[in-house]
Amino acid sequence: MGTKPSGPLRLLRETHEDRVLTALRNQGPLTRAQLADRTSLSRATLSSIVQTLLAKQAVTEAGLEDAAEVRGRGRPVSVLTLNPAGGLAVGMDLGHRRIQVTVANVAHEIVASDGIACAERTPWTQRVKLAVDLVDELTNRYEISLTSLAGLGVGIVGPVPSDRAGVVRDSLAARFGVPVFVDNNTRLAALAEATWGAGAGMGSVLYLRLSYGVGGGLVLGGRLLAGAGGAAGELGHISVDRDGPRCSCGGRGCLELHLSNLLDEYGGFDNLTPDAIADVATRTGEVLAAACNTVNPELVVIGGELTGVALLRPLRRALRDYTHTQVHHSLRVKPAELGYDAAARGGIALVLTNPPEEAEWRRTSCS
Amino acid sequence: MGTKPSGPLRLLRETHEDRVLTALRNQGPLTRAQLADRTSLSRATLSSIVQTLLAKQAVTEAGLEDAAEVRGRGRPVSVLTLNPAGGLAVGMDLGHRRIQVTVANVAHEIVASDGIACAERTPWTQRVKLAVDLVDELTNRYEISLTSLAGLGVGIVGPVPSDRAGVVRDSLAARFGVPVFVDNNTRLAALAEATWGAGAGMGSVLYLRLSYGVGGGLVLGGRLLAGAGGAAGELGHISVDRDGPRCSCGGRGCLELHLSNLLDEYGGFDNLTPDAIADVATRTGEVLAAACNTVNPELVVIGGELTGVALLRPLRRALRDYTHTQVHHSLRVKPAELGYDAAARGGIALVLTNPPEEAEWRRTSCS
Repeated sequence: MGTKPSGPLRLLRETHEDRVLTALRNQGPLTRAQLADRTSLSRATLSSIVQTLLAKQAVTEAGLEDAAEVRGRGRPVSVLTLNPAGGLAVGMDLGHRRIQVTVANVAHEIVASDGIACAERTPWTQRVKLAVDLVDELTNRYEISLTSLAGLGVGIVGPVPSDRAGVVRDSLAARFGVPVFVDNNTRLAALAEATWGAGAGMGSVLYLRLSYGVGGGLVLGGRLLAGAGGAAGELGHISVDRDGPRCSCGGRGCLELHLSNLLDEYGGFDNLTPDAIADVATRTGEVLAAACNTVNPELVVIGGELTGVALLRPLRRALRDYTHTQVHHSLRVKPAELGYDAAARGGIALVLTNPPEEAEWRRTSCS
Repeated sequence: MGTKPSGPLRLLRETHEDRVLTALRNQGPLTRAQLADRTSLSRATLSSIVQTLLAKQAVTEAGLEDAAEVRGRGRPVSVLTLNPAGGLAVGMDLGHRRIQVTVANVAHEIVASDGIACAERTPWTQRVKLAVDLVDELTNRYEISLTSLAGLGVGIVGPVPSDRAGVVRDSLAARFGVPVFVDNNTRLAALAEATWGAGAGMGSVLYLRLSYGVGGGLVLGGRLLAGAGGAAGELGHISVDRDGPRCSCGGRGCLELHLSNLLDEYGGFDNLTPDAIADVATRTGEVLAAACNTVNPELVVIGGELTGVALLRPLRRALRDYTHTQVHHSLRVKPAELGYDAAARGGIALVLTNPPEEAEWRRTSCS
């Protein structure tokens, strides 16, 4: 203690280091330019901070080939990440028909991932047991030690907070002895797309998933917006027909209900006619327009069963037709990039972006 | 320097102090319970930090009578604020027909406020000059020194960023030599309601103003959401009629256009029939329902010319009919509480919540 520098300059440097470490923890690999942007530090200050962190082995730098891989770009830039040895996070998705477990380190590198099918009626306690078994199986197969586990992030079907979410959280916290974060699995897919997928590195991402259910999520500054009642991103329950039928959510004429009725009529996604797809796409574009006029995101990401121009062309047209020019000019629309493990990856991002406040401040200040 | 404690404990305390000071700077007077909630500090830790800050005269504590006044509640609780001597912020609203200037200290106490009418066609350079003259007049009248001025926050009509916003910012920055923040004046009214008005102390506030224009703003965690193109909160341009006429914004069937056509038909707000008011209220409720399903706010605040049950009853009914139950259950709807000076107060809040990052970190770390 006594040998460390003290006084204002020391404090300022520590605080700057925290900002750099937090940005890397939340967003994974970043170039120096991206880091300067995220931390609002000058390039000169950042350069000095990064040098100190590299010397301490708190962060590592990836070479040219690695960097090109990391973001899928061809430009030869070097990227910084937290030292992969700094800890692990486990993500789980307890989905309707599939259980997925993914393990990553604090550098956002996936070190193991696998999934198993499960019957739709599998009870929740059983789903948790299956996921725990899968963690054991993966840690054995890949010889992973969970001694440096930072936390678990778990996606479940349905609203959160809920009794179910509480049961899942408590049983996993008891089993692993680390903080457990539970959220709706569609919202976690949104967070994953904003961290690893179509929205990696972007400031604000609105995600919508068109499947047998319609859900979404909003990620602002790399963090998932939960909302006052844990229901932010319920885009499937925005009305597309004010005189439409009542929905089980309590609303009327909801997009999800509209799509669900079409799927019943046609017998599933595979049988939808081009006109039916165009209708769904247009209604979805209208819903997204209302959401975009509210939050003016940088990017809309579309996930789910429908893809390609048959969906995206009419959707983009409706978005343009019903948004303020200024909202539309700053907006991009992209298909989702992640697959089965999207929600499990979102669970990992939830752990990395939402450490318990007090613990986080201790970690970064007293290390 | 040498006499200060050093090492991890010192650092942890300084970081905790920063969190307390930032919460008070952003949100004004807070009780210890509110501070504990905002900073995620335990009551015991907070109590010790507050004692230190009181001893340093960085914060002050208001007695029972003052506290009851501050929040308009009858409960005798004591509140903490930053020391009023810590600096001033000036808020300006360069509105269509009125120019308003308000001055407050970092404790969120209004020390001077006044407004003057101006013709709608007054050029922007002339509006800025009128506002500067009003600042001079107020500082003379109340013997206010601007030597400790932290910044100016200015509301203007129309989109921000824009050329107009740049001209206003640059001319005021040259005149006062402090950071100047410019935003749309309806968004600033949203921030003011979330800081001083109907949403004081709340975590997420969605504001909508029904006037000759229809605008809004979204405040999350005490901070105004700007959006990727500076157009977050454009609730007046959410469509209420997908086959409706084109709006100047580029959209179609916008709420603002719908209201504007009704006002033309009836000759202004004073002549609207109960049925016409109910129609506007219902359409507004539908628009708010889409926005609320997107962000799930704690509170909706309604400002503008229409008030009372004639507006709020059908608006609340539509909100209930078109929101997800979980969104609706966590939602309150209240009329706006602030008057003419709402946007100018929002300008002050903008200065206090958005100091230049680097300067802010210097201020809290090196004091």
